[in-house]
Amino acid sequence: MGRQIEVTELILRDSHQSLLATRMALEDMVPVCEDLDNAGFWSLECWGGATYDACIRYLNEDPWERLRTFRKLMPKTRLQMLLRGQNLLGYRHYEDDVVRRFCDKAAENGMDVFRIFDALNDLRNLETAIDAVRKTGKHAQGTICYTVSPLHTIEAFVEMAQRLKDMGVDSICIKDMAALLKPQPAYDLVKGIKEKCGEDTLVHVHCHATTGVTLVSYMKAIEAGADIVDTSVSSLSLGSGHNPTEALVEMLEGTGFETRLDLERIKPVNEHFAKIRPRYRQFMSEFTGVDTEIFKSQIPGGMISNMESQLKGQGAGDRLQEVMDEVPRVRADCGYPPLVTPSSQIVGTQAVFNVIMGKYQTLTSEFADLVLGYYGSTLGEKDPKVLALAEERQQKPPITGRPADLLKPEWEELRAEASALEGCDGSDEDVLTFAQFPQVSTKFFKTRSEGPKNLGKDPVSTAATDTPAPAAAGKPGEAGKAAADKGTVTYVVSLYGQEHQVTVSPAA
Amino acid sequence: MGRQIEVTELILRDSHQSLLATRMALEDMVPVCEDLDNAGFWSLECWGGATYDACIRYLNEDPWERLRTFRKLMPKTRLQMLLRGQNLLGYRHYEDDVVRRFCDKAAENGMDVFRIFDALNDLRNLETAIDAVRKTGKHAQGTICYTVSPLHTIEAFVEMAQRLKDMGVDSICIKDMAALLKPQPAYDLVKGIKEKCGEDTLVHVHCHATTGVTLVSYMKAIEAGADIVDTSVSSLSLGSGHNPTEALVEMLEGTGFETRLDLERIKPVNEHFAKIRPRYRQFMSEFTGVDTEIFKSQIPGGMISNMESQLKGQGAGDRLQEVMDEVPRVRADCGYPPLVTPSSQIVGTQAVFNVIMGKYQTLTSEFADLVLGYYGSTLGEKDPKVLALAEERQQKPPITGRPADLLKPEWEELRAEASALEGCDGSDEDVLTFAQFPQVSTKFFKTRSEGPKNLGKDPVSTAATDTPAPAAAGKPGEAGKAAADKGTVTYVVSLYGQEHQVTVSPAA
Repeated sequence: MGRQIEVTELILRDSHQSLLATRMALEDMVPVCEDLDNAGFWSLECWGGATYDACIRYLNEDPWERLRTFRKLMPKTRLQMLLRGQNLLGYRHYEDDVVRRFCDKAAENGMDVFRIFDALNDLRNLETAIDAVRKTGKHAQGTICYTVSPLHTIEAFVEMAQRLKDMGVDSICIKDMAALLKPQPAYDLVKGIKEKCGEDTLVHVHCHATTGVTLVSYMKAIEAGADIVDTSVSSLSLGSGHNPTEALVEMLEGTGFETRLDLERIKPVNEHFAKIRPRYRQFMSEFTGVDTEIFKSQIPGGMISNMESQLKGQGAGDRLQEVMDEVPRVRADCGYPPLVTPSSQIVGTQAVFNVIMGKYQTLTSEFADLVLGYYGSTLGEKDPKVLALAEERQQKPPITGRPADLLKPEWEELRAEASALEGCDGSDEDVLTFAQFPQVSTKFFKTRSEGPKNLGKDPVSTAATDTPAPAAAGKPGEAGKAAADKGTVTYVVSLYGQEHQVTVSPAA
Repeated sequence: MGRQIEVTELILRDSHQSLLATRMALEDMVPVCEDLDNAGFWSLECWGGATYDACIRYLNEDPWERLRTFRKLMPKTRLQMLLRGQNLLGYRHYEDDVVRRFCDKAAENGMDVFRIFDALNDLRNLETAIDAVRKTGKHAQGTICYTVSPLHTIEAFVEMAQRLKDMGVDSICIKDMAALLKPQPAYDLVKGIKEKCGEDTLVHVHCHATTGVTLVSYMKAIEAGADIVDTSVSSLSLGSGHNPTEALVEMLEGTGFETRLDLERIKPVNEHFAKIRPRYRQFMSEFTGVDTEIFKSQIPGGMISNMESQLKGQGAGDRLQEVMDEVPRVRADCGYPPLVTPSSQIVGTQAVFNVIMGKYQTLTSEFADLVLGYYGSTLGEKDPKVLALAEERQQKPPITGRPADLLKPEWEELRAEASALEGCDGSDEDVLTFAQFPQVSTKFFKTRSEGPKNLGKDPVSTAATDTPAPAAAGKPGEAGKAAADKGTVTYVVSLYGQEHQVTVSPAA
């Protein structure tokens, strides 16, 4: 009878990225693949995001082997990945040829659906990836990062959707990484896109659960015509993760909308992760409830605890509220970027610096680059004073063009460098690993033959997890580290896999 | 602009009953009373349910003193309680005069809104309490216990609402204790009540959060015209508790519905309980996620873990699924009662017995009484074979009348008995305490002068918590206890504060 609502299951990627610091080993996912493949999902998100980095950094797993394994074990269902546009899965902009090669290789190894986003919603940072995926014949999904600001109106987002449509995407994703999408805007946005871009435009909604309201938003989005929603089996859901798959199915009963999911297939998957989850306790986010303060700060929970520890390191643990109040101001000053990796870390860390050292007394290099346009454009104007400070700090001019246009061809050089490394097999896949994670891959290539580590199974071997993760690895909780001394203070800010030392004398 | 939605805050009663085994001390609630009183709630649920029992059993607190304290500290907002109809807050039916005296005294001590329910939805068990509350001039709320069965149609529930209306209630509550109320039935039920009973009939919806769908149900209920919904501040919400207050407020933004809650007043309340909660860790329900299996068994999470431990005690820990499958059959056999204290425990324990000892080989006394009508009538017919077994077991006939009609006046006798106890002050309040909890109050009167114990603050003094709570004390997790021996097995089943020994030889 009712309209069929399709579902993307997140358990193999975003669920454990959000709730278990991306540490889940492939070995712990293999047992459920058959059930997942037969449960009736539209797609199974299982790759990309921070998993690529986590594979080589913590798990001694080849991410490409992980992808091929998923493909083999789940032949019936679309596999889906999250791709950070021109940043791929790494922490800088890559030259177009590298982006194209990555998309080709991902398609060749089995990827079907590419969800492509840019943290700043600068569509120029999506162009190449969208075009490359389209050329492979796979599904290119254009993404709107949902955020709230005076400039981010429904009309502005709908306009963005139309531009993505014009770029040839196969579907539009509304990505709500901080659970800010309330029911009425969810309704209005989906309705607006359907009206502007055509009823046959596939609209895919991705919400986190953090604020507690987004299952209601799914209901409203579905009423407005949304085609696909993202959920996770209930034993690894909620908190900063996602709404539970089973609850979505039950919620729709009698509404005239229905999924084609088979709960009998989902039950063993859920029971499996209920057993597995406690083994990853050391990586679990402490936050499991609902946090509606995010509606004000827009800073996700993980980032808050990080800022708290940054502040404590400076003996300023009592100033968190000041930082929370400062975040929206810093965000306004740099043109209202959505707050998602890496912009959330950049803005959050700058807010901490402002509170501890005085307003814009010290700019992080990344914040300055953001202000100068080196990550792309934002919807809002930059504050002229902050722009001048950034220019002075970086000794380079602001740009308005596409950041990747500044890059020279780099593939051959990357290939040569990678191929010289011990353990690199010279494949394009290895070169892509090196391109994105030059330092980590150097170590990984050496140890790859030892085989995967399962940090849930073998907690003795978790020493590696003490290494701070880079900011953009999807672990906002470790974006920056600060170390206090009595007089002068040296901050070690780790962003995009690079550590920056900032030394400052106390203001007093 | 929009229609105003009123909210009842549950933090002072059902939240900690559901999540902290009703153990919260008054002392830990006092600091937030001023904020709660000024936050704009329609009412503050703060008394009744299992709190009366918990006060005297575990906290050495006089429940009447608790009520007077709330009244004094929260003069502006309605105080609300949960009352089990003819059972008051105890574990048997009381004679009408006792019921009337209880309602009088509660009103006199400051109670405003009486939510009156019967576990079987037998409205005859509500009559006296509703009439008594009306006579005090306070708010009598008639309650529908929501459940799902082939007989519990929207029409049947709407009919029940009309009968409550005819009894003169001031509002209708839809009480969804197991989080079974899905969005569409929520909509249909509220709509049906408004159409049948008149648009001006106040409809108050109470859902637990256990299955993860009920915030959506609130949205739909509100769209259908619901006037008031129940929530709890977020730091003590979700799991088998309730939907978060803050999330409700945020959810409604832009929908044309709005609360009059002041989030700035709620924030400190929330922060307070975020700090308090960990101190009650030992009483915390382990379950904090979403459980949609309840839609099948209708057995709340706490009851499941209890059945599991009953089974383990019999070396039958692997037979939980059989019990879960048996519960709906037992429920059908006894006429589809809603599963709420005490019927949930009665049906659940009988299901365990059926699985371990063979179908209806042993009937608990309580199950037999339920089948024979001594708790009231159910919507469905009883299975004739089970009815015959129950008659044989209890050596008494089935009844169709109102159970309390079998009772003789008992007030003067209760007064005499109570007044003879050490520490009883002879007040009606003390007699009511004795009437409901004869054994526990005997001990409580003796120790009352020592003052309240705070089990969260002083974990050393928690020895009392090792005492098993009676089934009907709102702690389904402790409904029955079983102890295994090698040959013959003796079960100790604790229901309504009375322990029953059942000795059985193994079937094999």
